[in-house]
Amino acid sequence: MTTCPAWEQSLLLKAIRREPTPYTPVWLMRQAGRYLPEYRALRSKIPFAQLCKTPSLCAQIMVQTVQRLGVDAAILFSDLLLVLEPMGFPVEYTAGEGPVFERPIRSAQEVDRLQELESLEPLAYVLEAMRLTRAALPNHIPLIGFAGAPFTLASYLIEGQGGSNFRYTKGLMYSDSGAWRAMMDRLARAVAQFLLAQIQAGAQAVQLFDTWAGCLGPEDYRQYVLPFSQAVIQAVESAAPVIHFSTGNPALLPLIREAGGQVIGVDWRVRLDQAWQQIGYDRAIQGNLDPAVLLGPPELIRQRVQQILCQAAGRAGHIFNLGHGLLPDTPVENVLILVDAVHQLSQRPTAASRIPSESVSLGSGSDQMPPELA
Amino acid sequence: MTTCPAWEQSLLLKAIRREPTPYTPVWLMRQAGRYLPEYRALRSKIPFAQLCKTPSLCAQIMVQTVQRLGVDAAILFSDLLLVLEPMGFPVEYTAGEGPVFERPIRSAQEVDRLQELESLEPLAYVLEAMRLTRAALPNHIPLIGFAGAPFTLASYLIEGQGGSNFRYTKGLMYSDSGAWRAMMDRLARAVAQFLLAQIQAGAQAVQLFDTWAGCLGPEDYRQYVLPFSQAVIQAVESAAPVIHFSTGNPALLPLIREAGGQVIGVDWRVRLDQAWQQIGYDRAIQGNLDPAVLLGPPELIRQRVQQILCQAAGRAGHIFNLGHGLLPDTPVENVLILVDAVHQLSQRPTAASRIPSESVSLGSGSDQMPPELA
Repeated sequence: MTTCPAWEQSLLLKAIRREPTPYTPVWLMRQAGRYLPEYRALRSKIPFAQLCKTPSLCAQIMVQTVQRLGVDAAILFSDLLLVLEPMGFPVEYTAGEGPVFERPIRSAQEVDRLQELESLEPLAYVLEAMRLTRAALPNHIPLIGFAGAPFTLASYLIEGQGGSNFRYTKGLMYSDSGAWRAMMDRLARAVAQFLLAQIQAGAQAVQLFDTWAGCLGPEDYRQYVLPFSQAVIQAVESAAPVIHFSTGNPALLPLIREAGGQVIGVDWRVRLDQAWQQIGYDRAIQGNLDPAVLLGPPELIRQRVQQILCQAAGRAGHIFNLGHGLLPDTPVENVLILVDAVHQLSQRPTAASRIPSESVSLGSGSDQMPPELA
Repeated sequence: MTTCPAWEQSLLLKAIRREPTPYTPVWLMRQAGRYLPEYRALRSKIPFAQLCKTPSLCAQIMVQTVQRLGVDAAILFSDLLLVLEPMGFPVEYTAGEGPVFERPIRSAQEVDRLQELESLEPLAYVLEAMRLTRAALPNHIPLIGFAGAPFTLASYLIEGQGGSNFRYTKGLMYSDSGAWRAMMDRLARAVAQFLLAQIQAGAQAVQLFDTWAGCLGPEDYRQYVLPFSQAVIQAVESAAPVIHFSTGNPALLPLIREAGGQVIGVDWRVRLDQAWQQIGYDRAIQGNLDPAVLLGPPELIRQRVQQILCQAAGRAGHIFNLGHGLLPDTPVENVLILVDAVHQLSQRPTAASRIPSESVSLGSGSDQMPPELA
């Protein structure tokens, strides 16, 4: 007889299933990253790509980070773009500018330079990192796998790098919908396959990152992006729950929800209560502190955590996170303050441990503590 | 007895006042820019900063652009950042990277390096460009003045350049609200003074560009930005109508409206009908085509113009524009197609010239032509 692993009753998986939890689970995008001195020490000895390809180090850095921060979930230490290497696009990680493709796709004719992902063998190191991380983590800490969404991967392939006005991506998308569909289909198949393999290797949930989707309006998202993200999510969701994350455009949230995901990740551009209302309460929500708040003083951090928790209103199904990755110059002590604040301020009173009912007031009327948290 | 100048009955000013117009007025941000061969020819002989400081050329390039495109408004040829030069921040316009400040403000202590704008004398060339442009334009074409909003100017001063994660700006904003307020107050006073002088020199309306406001969430916008943009608008709006433009976060629109502006400029991240509903129909609206659509085929351009016009539903008070500036590699013929499409597809039928009532269907049900346009 097999017993149910401890992670099944973890705060994260309960929140994903919208079951009540004694307090709100929290993890942070880029929680193992450059803001950590031990990470910088490691990186001074080993380049980023090599680190990603050394499973034992990937596992070590994530496990020690989870312990140090006291967060409620681990995420695979890896990179969005590695899946593109066996598809014909080796990535250069430059010092200051982030990842770069030397020869981006700039025309419909070039789309076939992106090859079908025929085998996961070249990505075996990612799956090994997953297995080692899962094995090294305590059983009550769930492990999240991840991949870039087709649009975000396509943007990198076409722009050659991140964040710009996305004119090459949109230019190709508008000019040749056949080539666009071929490329997005290929990416969707690769991503689905990769995520399923991550789940088999030990992930309890997966996050689909559509980091750049926010450069699009609703019409474009619906026409050129939604079907492909939906295909990925439908292929994966029976194996493990999907967190569907995007950033940059709150007006897309109803469509992001339509594309799928048991959890919808939102950034700080919208109030969490309004976001949840638009998404619908039949989905869990993840977010949504501006990572830049962690550059401010401790009082501000606690105040903003409180506001987000109040907006979540004690409803089951909230996973606390940032709206985007931790910034490299974030003080570690502020990250610890954040994690503690989420845990403390979200305590649900039980009959045994009720908190004295003094009213806690922070800021404007609409951010008052709801009665069940006061 | 003075007669009312022709521009008072121009399509733009009627739309600003939400009066009906025979068709929808259109102008385009960066309509005189690098996508035009004649502009590139001029720029090959004269650097950008020098061009901005040569009023006769500023007037010439805008007047010839308005004639060539057939748009319904001119905008001063100038740059957002020039107002900062007499405040102690000379701008470097680099070839590939856009404007850059060599020594950005990186701490609260440095905020006083930004000096009060004591006199408009150093900006006399801008006002002269305004006078010459007004004098050279036909009377029925209104001329728009403009300035950067305090937050967008502050972001440039603090980041040293545009578009990033705005971590220095937010870091300062969160860490020292006193220094932040002092800087924003100084910028608001300078911008208000500058816009009033532009109106005196011949502008019929002014646009306040809050290009980077979209990096903020609603709470931050309300606390750190709204009061200062509001101060500018309140100081200016009795002299001329204000178009309040921002980009990057549709969730801010109700607050942008609260800060003021007779017209609210919106980008393509949100449907125009939803944006207008959120803003309220007691304001005019400007927007909102994605400039990247102009990199696509003519059919797509016409289709997207039609969709936006359908979303405006023939309501008085819509000014057609892009959601951000024209991209440098836009084909000129596509810009002409756009302007023609707006004019043709927005014709309001009169008793004398009614269009046959065949139903015109384009795309999804909610984008059907409203009866008055069909």
